[in-house]
Amino acid sequence: MSRFLKQQYLSLEAYTPGEQPRDKQYIKLNTNESPFPPSEAVINAVNADEVRDLRLYSDPECKALKTALAELYEVSPNNIYLSNGSDDILNFSFMAFSENGVVFPEISYGFYKVFAELHNVSYTAIPLKDDFSIDPADYNVNGRLIVIANPNAPTGLCLDLGQIEGILKANPDSVVLIDEAYIDFGGESCFKLTKQYKNLLVVGTFSKSRSMAGARLGFAIADEELISDLERIKYSTNPYNINRLTLAAGTAAVKDNGYYMDNCRKIIQNREYTTLELEKLGFFVLPSKANFVFAKSEKIGGEELYLKLKANGILVRHFKTEKIKDFNRITIGSKEEMEKFIEVTTKILEGTL
Amino acid sequence: MSRFLKQQYLSLEAYTPGEQPRDKQYIKLNTNESPFPPSEAVINAVNADEVRDLRLYSDPECKALKTALAELYEVSPNNIYLSNGSDDILNFSFMAFSENGVVFPEISYGFYKVFAELHNVSYTAIPLKDDFSIDPADYNVNGRLIVIANPNAPTGLCLDLGQIEGILKANPDSVVLIDEAYIDFGGESCFKLTKQYKNLLVVGTFSKSRSMAGARLGFAIADEELISDLERIKYSTNPYNINRLTLAAGTAAVKDNGYYMDNCRKIIQNREYTTLELEKLGFFVLPSKANFVFAKSEKIGGEELYLKLKANGILVRHFKTEKIKDFNRITIGSKEEMEKFIEVTTKILEGTL
Repeated sequence: MSRFLKQQYLSLEAYTPGEQPRDKQYIKLNTNESPFPPSEAVINAVNADEVRDLRLYSDPECKALKTALAELYEVSPNNIYLSNGSDDILNFSFMAFSENGVVFPEISYGFYKVFAELHNVSYTAIPLKDDFSIDPADYNVNGRLIVIANPNAPTGLCLDLGQIEGILKANPDSVVLIDEAYIDFGGESCFKLTKQYKNLLVVGTFSKSRSMAGARLGFAIADEELISDLERIKYSTNPYNINRLTLAAGTAAVKDNGYYMDNCRKIIQNREYTTLELEKLGFFVLPSKANFVFAKSEKIGGEELYLKLKANGILVRHFKTEKIKDFNRITIGSKEEMEKFIEVTTKILEGTL
Repeated sequence: MSRFLKQQYLSLEAYTPGEQPRDKQYIKLNTNESPFPPSEAVINAVNADEVRDLRLYSDPECKALKTALAELYEVSPNNIYLSNGSDDILNFSFMAFSENGVVFPEISYGFYKVFAELHNVSYTAIPLKDDFSIDPADYNVNGRLIVIANPNAPTGLCLDLGQIEGILKANPDSVVLIDEAYIDFGGESCFKLTKQYKNLLVVGTFSKSRSMAGARLGFAIADEELISDLERIKYSTNPYNINRLTLAAGTAAVKDNGYYMDNCRKIIQNREYTTLELEKLGFFVLPSKANFVFAKSEKIGGEELYLKLKANGILVRHFKTEKIKDFNRITIGSKEEMEKFIEVTTKILEGTL
């Protein structure tokens, strides 16, 4: 760091993304990417004409994509905010809605803590219950920003709509941000509640179920007043923050929703297969509604399994945090990838690898 | 706005981007875009295989593009920072280096003031001289962040390397941010001074000379300590903030530098043509080193000319700011576009349009 950096950032611990090694080809089950490519419609949408038009700025209002999403989710385009990945939306929300501080689950997306520290916002990380679930009763913090990943990561556990509504009712003066990055893999989205609750901000991403992690596209659904707050921050930082090709790809993807929902069903099947096989091997596996499972074995430490899998060409995500250090988070890939993962894990447990 | 928005943002006036009307086709001379498409190499780089790979996150370290830029500018990849448009870099710099406040020219890129207000940084907008030039002697503010667009916008006037070096020497405890968005159209880049001055941060963009406004790609060149500060902010907000397709396009563009430098020469020719023709019509035109000219006429008000041009299918940029309200900023497009612009302007002055 330089001597010019502002004091408040000196102790900032940045987020550590999952490994993206370039040294060799791994079976990548570590960053919750989709094993399926974008649909043919998306591939066709990103054509040479679009690339030629890169000389022109993108539409800062993102009209075409907002219209497509509004149709899919049966809301108005004014209820939709778009940004350069959902991280961008989370960042802006921590800036905009945290006047009285913020709360989030202690075990959750590691970035929440980083956003709070970056913006110097007081925060409380609320412990999960012993079974790793979130207890809505722990979130009676009216006035503070509430951020909950649903399904939660890395646990994969999901709150139902009634529980979300309970949190909304208990905290009418809080913005309740529900981060639905993984909702399409079996949970029920709460976006419909935005019509009733002006304090609900639902954040989605194209990175997981829509196979576009590399395109950087996130969206939010909320009452238009919350949306206008986010737009104000966007127009004060980077109005053109989504590039033309991502807008074109995103619009095509929304119009091709069936393809992506089919893929989600396949992921769910592969998750059930993986869970069953891991349980046969003696693993404890949390019941996941996401495109990953969180699992531990009494036969092998979390880090040891992670390292042995890596040595054998398979990347999973291990967290050193004390309470979850026995676990690994395993992204659900294709059937072939999961078969290979089970095969290698079996051999590691047998001691033959 | 909602009742949840943080107090500090209630009075925030967001940046107003140039118009991007969708109602009809204009000759767009209002947002300093390039009339030339990206090169064939760029069009080939954004192919179906790349779109398929969108399922995977982009490289947060941006290694391929950093390596290409490092080669072009003869620096180390560790001296290069990449982000989602140069606005992103400016935003992060206002966050990171403004502990003691910031100064910038009163007439300049309108976003500087917005960044200062967004991050609650005390700022001084330093008036230009009567001839609209920047006087380096006005920037003896050691310790405060100094932000200067060079060439400046919307004036197009450029400081030379000696003047920049004077500012660096006078302010060893300031980060001196030189925003070189328009440097390739006739100014001399100061990036070489980064080897000597650890407090110099040179910011560039692919939006202008490299025909990629819609791809959102900005870069900075500086001592590696300043770069590491920017990386820290990036990894605390949005580590994957550049999408895969932009990285691929940017890398191809850098390797195809000759094409873009040829285009810059054409723009310079068209600028000379436009300047000469405007002067023939009695306009006062500032001597521009950018891909736009800033011009006024005693025969017609700035806003009136802007409106009449717009009514006739030509968009230029007019600013209502008192000191420059007589001017318009006219982007230099293709020869045909500039001929049409001169033709229409002539008729407006004659009163036949």
